[in-house]
Amino acid sequence: MSARNAFYAQSGGVTAVINASACGVIETARRHTDRIANVYAGRYGIIGALTEDLIDTSQESDESIAALRYTPAGAFGSCRYKLKSLEASKREYERLIEIFKAHDIGYFFYNGGGDSADTCYKISQLSEKLGYPVQAIHIPKTVDNDLPITDNCPGFGSVAKYIATSTLEASFDVRSMSKTSTKVFVLEVMGRHAGWIAAAGGLVEDHAIPVMILFPEIEFDQERFIAAVKDKVERFDFCTIVISEGAKYPDGRFLAEQGTRDAFGHAQLGGAAPVVANMIKDATGYKFHWAVADYLQRAARHLASKTDVEQAYAVGRAGVEFALAGHNAVMPMIKRLSNDPYAWEVGEAPLSEVANVEKFMPREFISADGFGITSACKEYLIPLIQGEDYPPFERGLPKYVTLKNLPVARKLAPFEL
Amino acid sequence: MSARNAFYAQSGGVTAVINASACGVIETARRHTDRIANVYAGRYGIIGALTEDLIDTSQESDESIAALRYTPAGAFGSCRYKLKSLEASKREYERLIEIFKAHDIGYFFYNGGGDSADTCYKISQLSEKLGYPVQAIHIPKTVDNDLPITDNCPGFGSVAKYIATSTLEASFDVRSMSKTSTKVFVLEVMGRHAGWIAAAGGLVEDHAIPVMILFPEIEFDQERFIAAVKDKVERFDFCTIVISEGAKYPDGRFLAEQGTRDAFGHAQLGGAAPVVANMIKDATGYKFHWAVADYLQRAARHLASKTDVEQAYAVGRAGVEFALAGHNAVMPMIKRLSNDPYAWEVGEAPLSEVANVEKFMPREFISADGFGITSACKEYLIPLIQGEDYPPFERGLPKYVTLKNLPVARKLAPFEL
Repeated sequence: MSARNAFYAQSGGVTAVINASACGVIETARRHTDRIANVYAGRYGIIGALTEDLIDTSQESDESIAALRYTPAGAFGSCRYKLKSLEASKREYERLIEIFKAHDIGYFFYNGGGDSADTCYKISQLSEKLGYPVQAIHIPKTVDNDLPITDNCPGFGSVAKYIATSTLEASFDVRSMSKTSTKVFVLEVMGRHAGWIAAAGGLVEDHAIPVMILFPEIEFDQERFIAAVKDKVERFDFCTIVISEGAKYPDGRFLAEQGTRDAFGHAQLGGAAPVVANMIKDATGYKFHWAVADYLQRAARHLASKTDVEQAYAVGRAGVEFALAGHNAVMPMIKRLSNDPYAWEVGEAPLSEVANVEKFMPREFISADGFGITSACKEYLIPLIQGEDYPPFERGLPKYVTLKNLPVARKLAPFEL
Repeated sequence: MSARNAFYAQSGGVTAVINASACGVIETARRHTDRIANVYAGRYGIIGALTEDLIDTSQESDESIAALRYTPAGAFGSCRYKLKSLEASKREYERLIEIFKAHDIGYFFYNGGGDSADTCYKISQLSEKLGYPVQAIHIPKTVDNDLPITDNCPGFGSVAKYIATSTLEASFDVRSMSKTSTKVFVLEVMGRHAGWIAAAGGLVEDHAIPVMILFPEIEFDQERFIAAVKDKVERFDFCTIVISEGAKYPDGRFLAEQGTRDAFGHAQLGGAAPVVANMIKDATGYKFHWAVADYLQRAARHLASKTDVEQAYAVGRAGVEFALAGHNAVMPMIKRLSNDPYAWEVGEAPLSEVANVEKFMPREFISADGFGITSACKEYLIPLIQGEDYPPFERGLPKYVTLKNLPVARKLAPFEL
């Protein structure tokens, strides 16, 4: 069997460790040049494939590729560009197959969340239908931790560690100041539909911090919430609140609705923290501070979870190994073997079962009052934030790599997106 | 000379390293028990002295005191409670002297910013006037870096490192996403009057990031600002903006004015980032994300600057050494000896020159267009963020200490604040 090329693309919101998966893919491919001649990366994700804007990763040194392991965000660029059904996006899917043919691409590695799992699955179906053989492998990535089957998603452990650490640190600050100043601190975190990231804030409860979580999964009840905040402040003198950007009123309105939507039709959120902080101030008069972590949380490679980095690398490597073993339409997944000591291995999930399924917080991970996490949830979360994996620093700042990202020569006519 | 007790208090907004100064004070005092019998700490700062709510630090183990070096926020509690002139706050000042007498306190260590330097100075004056000998030493602390005479303030280097790192990481994220999604990222940072913290964001320019800074020292000119943002985005496809909470319109209004004021009469700020982000969206249509770092930045001990930790400890230790040498009404300060390699030593400043002087960014540290920092500013900042000093971690989270904070028995009648 002669060597064919691979295509790798990053999709959707980036994470602190998606480049560690890229590193796993490229380093593993480089050990099998008899089977994988070169890895082409899509510049800005799948758009790079559609527009034939391919990056020649063979132009990057081994050192640069190794540095991806500790560099956050998407080294090749990502995009929010959703391919729809095979019928509705026929033109795009067929263009992809044309590009693969033109560049002798036999392996498609798509690194993303639920939407890209769906795209990846469709490409495998189309490749079969059109008789052009491409092995389509989905590499899981999402800070939201909302993919099914896999125990957890690479990217989540690091943002969870960042949010738990930041919640702990800010809570120590509020505790110091509570006598005359701030009594309530509100931290807004990511998580449109699933409260996994917000749940990580609940881990500080074991550090004697009175903390309340507002999950997207639990309808927001203003009266019960204010009463619970007052109770905490009366008992502890202060209270920390971690709110998911996706927290909703019973009628479905987001607390933070801004009215804009992204390319996938998802509402663009932001600003739930000041809404809740002012609500508390109005009801109780407590002084407050609030923070919105936004990109800081998912880009915080300086505080990545070692477990997460290892898993991100492992799913990248496994993706290539599955492809070399002839598998198609699959996703490497994380299987938890035990909690304490934590043990895990990489398994394999069929994409037909991954695509378009969203995994929410199970109700038994949320405390009875809806404002906290249970010990089952803590047992789930703690292994995922284990270990530190600091990047190298130079002149006081992390020494992250920026690749050359040289283009592959075009062979086809331009394509209008 | 028989041993007398010392009083130590934390004042104003806490930092990632104010406890490192506490550690320097207490560890040094413990090496001189012939002169300093015990260190009493004020519970919630100077309020603890006024209300005779003293903490007996001798009840804390050496290990716990050593752990203060890597624990953020104020371990004994802090407060925002400003003593005014000797006449206007006569009752409070006299009460402090009574407390000192009752508990045989001969050393007063006040760890704070400009307001507490002023209080400390007044106590030294009053002690002289009333004939009760107290050596009053101010230990500098402020994330705002706005104290005069000292080259920099302990607390600032760590927040600068955090903001520069976070700006770098989030900028990598935006750069990844800019093709179809976010083009402008706005990060709001602390700094009411002085733009030192915002300036730290400018350090990412040397990492090929198009960054703009909005300083409190430069009047905000909306038209020029929008034009500059458009220019950056047209040239680089994205742009990062770091805005100081104290950024102001030419008429003096804060971009983020919320209308509330703290105990010192300072306007309480927050929310400049969404104001600026929406302004850009309206003028250009660019997609944006914004973050407000708030307490996360000043509590982020996990990313402290090693230089800052060492200096914070050193000024605590020097404060005790100055006191033991018989000095009064002074502040240990940082003297910069050279930039590269960076060298510094602890000097001594008279409080008469420190109190009530605020140090702003010099104009020659701000670029000609007002939106960036100069190489002189970079030369100043870079040494201050040098080195990492990670806290120990346990089960995925930093292992910070919470002290027992046992009370000293009261001897006087209650005092109404």
